[in-house]
Amino acid sequence: MKRMRIVDCLKSDKSLESCTVAGWVRTKRESKENIFIEINDGSCLTNVQVVVGFGDSCYDIARQLHTGASVFITGKLLPSPAAGQKWELKPDKLIVYGDADSESYPLQKKRHSFEFLREIAHLRPRTNTMGAVLRIRNQVSYAIHTFFQQKGFLYVHTPIITTSDCEGAGEMFQVTTLDLLHLPVQDGLIDYSHDFFGAKAALTVSGQLEGELLALAMGDIYTFGPTFRAENSNTTRHLSEFWMVEPEMAFATLDDDCSLAEEFLKFIFTWVIDRCHEDMVFFDERIKPGILHNLESIITSSFEIVTYTDAIAQLKQASEPFEYAVEWGIDLQTEHERWLTEKYYKKPIIVIDYPHEIKAFYMKQNDDNKTVKAMDVLVPGVGEIIGGSEREDRYDVLIQRMQAMGLNPDDYWWYLDTRRYGSAPHAGFGLGFERAIQFITGMQNIRDVIPFPRTPGSAKF
Amino acid sequence: MKRMRIVDCLKSDKSLESCTVAGWVRTKRESKENIFIEINDGSCLTNVQVVVGFGDSCYDIARQLHTGASVFITGKLLPSPAAGQKWELKPDKLIVYGDADSESYPLQKKRHSFEFLREIAHLRPRTNTMGAVLRIRNQVSYAIHTFFQQKGFLYVHTPIITTSDCEGAGEMFQVTTLDLLHLPVQDGLIDYSHDFFGAKAALTVSGQLEGELLALAMGDIYTFGPTFRAENSNTTRHLSEFWMVEPEMAFATLDDDCSLAEEFLKFIFTWVIDRCHEDMVFFDERIKPGILHNLESIITSSFEIVTYTDAIAQLKQASEPFEYAVEWGIDLQTEHERWLTEKYYKKPIIVIDYPHEIKAFYMKQNDDNKTVKAMDVLVPGVGEIIGGSEREDRYDVLIQRMQAMGLNPDDYWWYLDTRRYGSAPHAGFGLGFERAIQFITGMQNIRDVIPFPRTPGSAKF
Repeated sequence: MKRMRIVDCLKSDKSLESCTVAGWVRTKRESKENIFIEINDGSCLTNVQVVVGFGDSCYDIARQLHTGASVFITGKLLPSPAAGQKWELKPDKLIVYGDADSESYPLQKKRHSFEFLREIAHLRPRTNTMGAVLRIRNQVSYAIHTFFQQKGFLYVHTPIITTSDCEGAGEMFQVTTLDLLHLPVQDGLIDYSHDFFGAKAALTVSGQLEGELLALAMGDIYTFGPTFRAENSNTTRHLSEFWMVEPEMAFATLDDDCSLAEEFLKFIFTWVIDRCHEDMVFFDERIKPGILHNLESIITSSFEIVTYTDAIAQLKQASEPFEYAVEWGIDLQTEHERWLTEKYYKKPIIVIDYPHEIKAFYMKQNDDNKTVKAMDVLVPGVGEIIGGSEREDRYDVLIQRMQAMGLNPDDYWWYLDTRRYGSAPHAGFGLGFERAIQFITGMQNIRDVIPFPRTPGSAKF
Repeated sequence: MKRMRIVDCLKSDKSLESCTVAGWVRTKRESKENIFIEINDGSCLTNVQVVVGFGDSCYDIARQLHTGASVFITGKLLPSPAAGQKWELKPDKLIVYGDADSESYPLQKKRHSFEFLREIAHLRPRTNTMGAVLRIRNQVSYAIHTFFQQKGFLYVHTPIITTSDCEGAGEMFQVTTLDLLHLPVQDGLIDYSHDFFGAKAALTVSGQLEGELLALAMGDIYTFGPTFRAENSNTTRHLSEFWMVEPEMAFATLDDDCSLAEEFLKFIFTWVIDRCHEDMVFFDERIKPGILHNLESIITSSFEIVTYTDAIAQLKQASEPFEYAVEWGIDLQTEHERWLTEKYYKKPIIVIDYPHEIKAFYMKQNDDNKTVKAMDVLVPGVGEIIGGSEREDRYDVLIQRMQAMGLNPDDYWWYLDTRRYGSAPHAGFGLGFERAIQFITGMQNIRDVIPFPRTPGSAKF
């Protein structure tokens, strides 16, 4: 069934004697002489307009079409006399594969709230907004791969199910095949030797630790896979299941990490503006005015590197009344991050050298014994978009940090082995994919930038 | 820390006055006048040889180096007098980041069994075989993305956690945050309204059903993500966690599906031979002689399409004594598949139109009321590598099939909706990524083609 994608039809530089398209009816209206049908096939935001004249062979079929029906049309692509569109399709043949009952089909012409559309996530890809989101997700994904491939990083697949309840990055989902109504309990504890993996297992919160193992053999690697947080966070910024990108570089320092993050973001933003121009204009006009300019200004700006200590001093001098008081040692809140990047620096900044108390055990200690070689990239409009660090590569220091944070080094024997055998400086970062898509599109709720969101109380479809 | 990757050093077309590499010592040997150190950084199979002369400034450091140590070396890249290598590195500076104790470092020069290496999966990426596997995984991944991107397919992310215990494709892992020692039991049943998602949840066995929803809005899509099977299969072909590629095309038939599968496999195999030549020669020489020729012959062959009914007739006439008796209605076993593709057709074949009893509910019924529009791609040396179908797009027929197979249509209301509203012919297939890597590399055990395998009883690292 050879069809031409509508995106390609609309880009045609000449009339076409025979052109076949297939898609779904978005709207239909009738004038005295013609029926106008707008068809969308997901390949672009714009519909192709099909014009059926009174007396045309497919006129009767066209009259009975409803919004949502799927059609297969062969006809002539001709210059359109209508304003705002270059081409229209004059059909010779119109096949209806599946109609859509106008009483019950939920996606009628009127505008629907995002809340309502979440309830019909199986159909919302047929809306303008979700269609545009999906095309942007696709391009950003390929941009991510292309960026790292061009730089010689290897894409690696770190495990999703893990028995190392390690990182403490967040609450974990348990994975089991035990019969919950007949659990093997011994001395008041569950005997996990009977579980599928012979141990208590959970869904990963990050591929970083395994990514480090791989970087310390292959040089430069990146992951791009799903991660999970079993946190009861009902916010517009949290998902229980989300995709994460985590590059890790051997023989690299915090400086290298900052440079990579800056180059990476600029590459992605440039890519998406180049390849999703129509969709980006849609987001800029309909969702968040200024979002396109925001991206463009990031591409041309030079990211400023600021120490946490300096950032705290700047925040203390702010005339802004913050909800959370500023003191050296606090974790920066979004209000602080946004003030720094929007009001003070007026461009993206990278805050480095955070107090070790508020950062993970694996970050490399600075000589001041107070801070670690962490880095967070903050962007206007959002705050933190990337978090990373140089990793602690000194065996003894790492053991001390683990103990200080109440972790048992025995649980991490394999991670520690990379510091016993051929340890090397290395650094990496993590980008939450959906947060990046949210930032790029300006979508207000993260549940609307992933096809089937998983959140507390909801894993439908 | 600017370093040059060893793969680039070795491809240099001229001597270099100053060249910095970093990596891990694979071997070291001493002659009267020189120390020869082989360094690998994961960028390619071949090591760069570092030659330190007696009296050189780094001679004393070099003498104390052990296998597994990580080093950072700046020196001159010079033509090598040794046979089999074009370049060698004469160091001016040699920094040891982390040594490796020669008593305890598990990866000494001798050859290790794959079984042993699985026990140290955190270190085995530093071996030739796993390094090569990882580079091939990377290239095949990017080939997959590039193939579909070039064809205008959208990469979509289908959910990992699901509450629709649907497809019956295999046993599922349960996902929960309930406290297993204090379960909310009511009338002898667990009250899942207290669980994280308010319902019983599990890990996906396939993204296909959600992929169909997306294809029936966006046209052509593909997934590439992890899938899970909680089956107690301790074989060389099964993993509990593996990555799957699942394209889905709207307005497509079984024929289109077969064509796409053939084009897809040829694209990937061509890509990997072009881009991983050194690694493929390694697999051809060390792991499975003939594997390279096997791939090349697939690329140049034309896949034969055979109906299941014809295949059964051919198998019945075979003089081969099969372990499983051949009758119309049986599921083809690997022995049958291999005989067909290796002995009878001597090239890849695509078997279509399987009996509906042995295939999933969503496959489109043929008019004979006995078979469905399924297709399996069989390749020499392995048997099935891809399975797919045209999907049942007729609402009534689909409902009947579900009921006949004991499924409750109410559980699939969202899936059925796509057949109620704008249904259209569509088709797709699935490729198990690790099985494809196993086929490409000739590796005997699937546990050795994924960095951290998850299998019954084991989810370490």
